[in-house]
Amino acid sequence: MNQRAIVLVSGGLDSATTLALAKSRGHDCVPLTFRYGQRHAVELAAASRVCTQLGVRAPLVVEIDLRAFGGSALTGDLPVPKGRSQSEIASGIPATYVPARNIIFLSYALGAAEAFGAGDIFLGVNAVDYSGYPDCRPEFIAAFEHMANLGTKAGVEGRPLNIRAPLSGMTKAEIIRLGLSLGVDYALTHSCYDPVGTLACGRCDSCRIRLKGFADAGVKDPVQYA
Amino acid sequence: MNQRAIVLVSGGLDSATTLALAKSRGHDCVPLTFRYGQRHAVELAAASRVCTQLGVRAPLVVEIDLRAFGGSALTGDLPVPKGRSQSEIASGIPATYVPARNIIFLSYALGAAEAFGAGDIFLGVNAVDYSGYPDCRPEFIAAFEHMANLGTKAGVEGRPLNIRAPLSGMTKAEIIRLGLSLGVDYALTHSCYDPVGTLACGRCDSCRIRLKGFADAGVKDPVQYA
Repeated sequence: MNQRAIVLVSGGLDSATTLALAKSRGHDCVPLTFRYGQRHAVELAAASRVCTQLGVRAPLVVEIDLRAFGGSALTGDLPVPKGRSQSEIASGIPATYVPARNIIFLSYALGAAEAFGAGDIFLGVNAVDYSGYPDCRPEFIAAFEHMANLGTKAGVEGRPLNIRAPLSGMTKAEIIRLGLSLGVDYALTHSCYDPVGTLACGRCDSCRIRLKGFADAGVKDPVQYA
Repeated sequence: MNQRAIVLVSGGLDSATTLALAKSRGHDCVPLTFRYGQRHAVELAAASRVCTQLGVRAPLVVEIDLRAFGGSALTGDLPVPKGRSQSEIASGIPATYVPARNIIFLSYALGAAEAFGAGDIFLGVNAVDYSGYPDCRPEFIAAFEHMANLGTKAGVEGRPLNIRAPLSGMTKAEIIRLGLSLGVDYALTHSCYDPVGTLACGRCDSCRIRLKGFADAGVKDPVQYA
């Protein structure tokens, strides 16, 4: 087994849990994060705190500018939806969708995997309690892995790259219980799309999904809300 | 037919021909190019010249930093191979391979296609007279297109994205003849991996493939060599 793994970290709850899980499986984790003009750049500080707490090296930060293309509430062009119900959240692709974002992130992760000699790429996408993004679905992850092994030197030379989305089939409450069992300190994580200073808004889709997950898990969310 | 198309342009011979071909098919072309720490940044100026000559809008330039990952002769970490024979060029993946480069470029093109409402993405890869890069092969292109339509809003909402690699099965001489018939001025293009000032070196793999293509086409290469 190739012990080294690239782990995409955002500072959020899912990626913190994924990082803890990859580490618990014995991987030498190389965290990778992105500065992409997002409204919630405070999540980069959260990503660093999470890595420190879990005893993992500081994240590589890749600077990319998705604002050149516009078209998403997360990069400043549209308002962030607030106060939507769980059924509204579950229907359709929201304004916070960033065109091709996860595809771009995963493509950089392939470059990092080749440069660092990693055989696995972990990402914390979740297809149960999620926001309806097409690039979080298992069939997308499988297609990306297939493409990656045809399009990289590692893949064609017989060192296959594995895209791991271990939270894919879990509910948010299950993810939270898993993370707590692995020692994740969720007080250090940040999920809000539209924070008030450093406080979570409590009303965007991401906050609502998170709060429901903690409620379902029977655990109090340790982050502070505005 | 959706007339708008994203066209990846590098300033080289293949992408200039691809741009002329997309335009001749009636597409409203949005050229997209990248500044990625390459040794041969002079190619960006060539990309602009080619767009002007073909009557296409100026290219969108995306700034990305692949140097963070290292590992390629094209980004300064390894020497550019010189004076290799055609059989040496055809064997294996060379040091000029940049980890996941075309995958990263195509991923940005997906974001641009969604933002600009384009249905087609053209790129000038070629699997006949090429440098052995895995991300130039038709099976890779097909896998990327499949992944893209599972992982983007456009794809899942029934506006499929098409990845077009029209030069894929052509020899370099055929590409040159096609471009000349479409009015491409190859004097404006730049192919060299390791230019001497603005002059092509004439000895790297890219120069050698180019020079052989012009010789096979029975046409004099109009660029100046050192």
